[in-house]
Amino acid sequence: MDGNNKPVVNLISKPENMLKTVYTACRTCYSADYPINIYNGADDEEKMLKLINRVISSGHYSTIEHIQVTFAISNVSRACTHQLVRHRHMSFSQKSQRYVKEKGQFDYIIPPTIEKNDELKSKYIDFMNKISQQYQEFVEAGIPAEDARFVLPNAAASSLVASLNLREMIHLANLRLCTRAQYEIRTMVKMMCDALVAEEPWLKPYLVPKCERYGFCDEDKSCGRMKTREQLGF
Amino acid sequence: MDGNNKPVVNLISKPENMLKTVYTACRTCYSADYPINIYNGADDEEKMLKLINRVISSGHYSTIEHIQVTFAISNVSRACTHQLVRHRHMSFSQKSQRYVKEKGQFDYIIPPTIEKNDELKSKYIDFMNKISQQYQEFVEAGIPAEDARFVLPNAAASSLVASLNLREMIHLANLRLCTRAQYEIRTMVKMMCDALVAEEPWLKPYLVPKCERYGFCDEDKSCGRMKTREQLGF
Amino acid sequence: MDGNNKPVVNLISKPENMLKTVYTACRTCYSADYPINIYNGADDEEKMLKLINRVISSGHYSTIEHIQVTFAISNVSRACTHQLVRHRHMSFSQKSQRYVKEKGQFDYIIPPTIEKNDELKSKYIDFMNKISQQYQEFVEAGIPAEDARFVLPNAAASSLVASLNLREMIHLANLRLCTRAQYEIRTMVKMMCDALVAEEPWLKPYLVPKCERYGFCDEDKSCGRMKTREQLGF
Amino acid sequence: MDGNNKPVVNLISKPENMLKTVYTACRTCYSADYPINIYNGADDEEKMLKLINRVISSGHYSTIEHIQVTFAISNVSRACTHQLVRHRHMSFSQKSQRYVKEKGQFDYIIPPTIEKNDELKSKYIDFMNKISQQYQEFVEAGIPAEDARFVLPNAAASSLVASLNLREMIHLANLRLCTRAQYEIRTMVKMMCDALVAEEPWLKPYLVPKCERYGFCDEDKSCGRMKTREQLGF
Repeated sequence: MDGNNKPVVNLISKPENMLKTVYTACRTCYSADYPINIYNGADDEEKMLKLINRVISSGHYSTIEHIQVTFAISNVSRACTHQLVRHRHMSFSQKSQRYVKEKGQFDYIIPPTIEKNDELKSKYIDFMNKISQQYQEFVEAGIPAEDARFVLPNAAASSLVASLNLREMIHLANLRLCTRAQYEIRTMVKMMCDALVAEEPWLKPYLVPKCERYGFCDEDKSCGRMKTREQLGF
Repeated sequence: MDGNNKPVVNLISKPENMLKTVYTACRTCYSADYPINIYNGADDEEKMLKLINRVISSGHYSTIEHIQVTFAISNVSRACTHQLVRHRHMSFSQKSQRYVKEKGQFDYIIPPTIEKNDELKSKYIDFMNKISQQYQEFVEAGIPAEDARFVLPNAAASSLVASLNLREMIHLANLRLCTRAQYEIRTMVKMMCDALVAEEPWLKPYLVPKCERYGFCDEDKSCGRMKTREQLGF
Repeated sequence: MDGNNKPVVNLISKPENMLKTVYTACRTCYSADYPINIYNGADDEEKMLKLINRVISSGHYSTIEHIQVTFAISNVSRACTHQLVRHRHMSFSQKSQRYVKEKGQFDYIIPPTIEKNDELKSKYIDFMNKISQQYQEFVEAGIPAEDARFVLPNAAASSLVASLNLREMIHLANLRLCTRAQYEIRTMVKMMCDALVAEEPWLKPYLVPKCERYGFCDEDKSCGRMKTREQLGF
Repeated sequence: MDGNNKPVVNLISKPENMLKTVYTACRTCYSADYPINIYNGADDEEKMLKLINRVISSGHYSTIEHIQVTFAISNVSRACTHQLVRHRHMSFSQKSQRYVKEKGQFDYIIPPTIEKNDELKSKYIDFMNKISQQYQEFVEAGIPAEDARFVLPNAAASSLVASLNLREMIHLANLRLCTRAQYEIRTMVKMMCDALVAEEPWLKPYLVPKCERYGFCDEDKSCGRMKTREQLGF
């Protein structure tokens, strides 16, 4: 187990000249100039940011698809990754339970509702040990890892490399920072947003729950943070 | 448990006039006629099939994207569905372990390598019971289903509705009927193919492992059924 | 020329049991039942519609991806189709100018701003004739159709077969029914929506400009129909 | 007119540490290590390349999706861009004929079959001038650019910013370097490949026509460079 029981998230790759590339894309649509000339002439950061913000605010997200970023993610449960890989505009390379045999106790995640209760936490840890023993017993009996893993729990920690463009990054934040999302994926996506904003602070206003972008909550069971469409009268 | 320990697969929806629609798409590319006229005039099934087969054989798969089919799938493990949902050109609606609380013993899948060994099978079933008891204990202690499920295993059975167009159907078959794919997803995809071929027999030659389409095996560890590119000398 | 100068749009294919399929997808997420049992038991149309409307209103659009519909479209300009094919979640089969040689005068579209002015309209028609003569001259000189077409105008009429799922259909309507969209694609998309609503009236409330869904206008240059976010104060 | 009548292609953006990122993705699938540790420990370029080549050769292309590259492209015809934007895994920002008014003679492309014939070339250039005059006449009469452009030809030059990941880059090369592709898109894609290979030479063996990857030609009308499946007997 990782000890701190939290996702490990690192931004490992992003394109060179992120701002210049997006600015060139925005201007290409409205300019008679060659994009390579727009690109080479782009040096006024304030002017670039002003245009980019205007374009994104108008919902013309295609211009930010030109930027893709890559995260290394570890210590998240298989419950969490089963949700994450449903984002079909993302690219994933995930640790395989078919090919990677667990040696000794497998890493796992403890949900906060269990962790804060000492008795339940103790039972949970004991049970993870039991699962590990059963897994090892099957492996030692000659069962291949891909079948022995049938006893491994949703709690089992996984690792992945995940890439997505800025349009999908905003979409991911809008959906998964919502308080209706599961705590673990919400935590992980928040860490992804923070890692990106640390290097590209201009993105901060867009990496928010959807209700902040829409001005209302469209969830069937609202958390109450923002009014629903019905409450707003449309 | 379902008893027969096999996926349950049903084709529940497909478009009306599948053949006429694909034929109209193929002909539209090469004709001065309005597609609605091509569609209304299409009645010679043999002629339609001949053209469609020629187009697909040439690798022009875009014409068969116009047909989408929908399957109802049950009694497959979460290990299997975690692989299936990686197909990003498919659409899924899957039973949620966050919202659907397991009552009594949860359904689960037994891998064949364990099932065929009476002693291991017995241990496996006992252990599934233990997991179920631990899950119920957490639920009764007030832990929400979305957190109690952290103890549930990869073996836990799931259900989903899955849709895909014929281009992706061929891609799915090419990848997952390969003997290198996991037995469970291979079984499930074979059942999907059989259910579709039962109604649309003309699709049979395309719903095969990739090696039969390519004429060679491109896997790093070949099963030997077909020669590798190296063995063929290119 | 087609004479009526308007798109020709026909809905040629949709899945059987559209409502039952979407209902089964919605219920599968929240039910312990097998989806095939949900499907077979679905017969109360009012109940199905109530659930589906609730799910779509909550923004859970993945459940309506299971339905794909196909349109035969003709008599639209290449200017229009160049915009349409930018919808990357759609499938297209379009009449090829490389392979289909124009014989005699090619069909073309007249924009309304020109059509309503007799003098300009007359010049426009004359010029389309000149383009046709130049095209034919190149063809007769042995230039292949794929190169002779370089003189053909954006006005040239095209035909295509286009398929999309209901999620993309709503997205297409939201974007292209906006008064900021070009008149021709707006007309064509309106006809697609009307053709679908004629058979599936429950979809009507969703096939609207984006401002009606959001409750505000997010365009940089608003038409004034709805207030902007700034005007609404968020 | 640009004078040299050829596409202008520049690679303007790619991620930092391309090789390390792909290597980390490949290893993450088969390793118990955290991906961030794999990434930080990666420094043996030869070893990285060996693994990457093995993975790509096995058809496991998902690992190279993590790398996206961006090109600035100019002086290509609208005939060419209408084909390019059909690649639905790419991102585009294209010069708009709705918003960018042509001032003076618009730029255009001359197909080689016309350019090599002095008489036809002269007629072609004269005709482009006539189109330009007709366009300007409509603009001066108050017709908006988005409607005046209906007379502009497929030959009209366009510019765009285009991004794609390496998996799609290989797919694009496989399809568009085929001699059956149109000369202009073949030329443009060759220039894109050359610009990328200049910086990342390890990609060269993959950026080839599909027949070189498959070992056979699957086109209905083969150019004869490689044998067809029928000729090879499968």
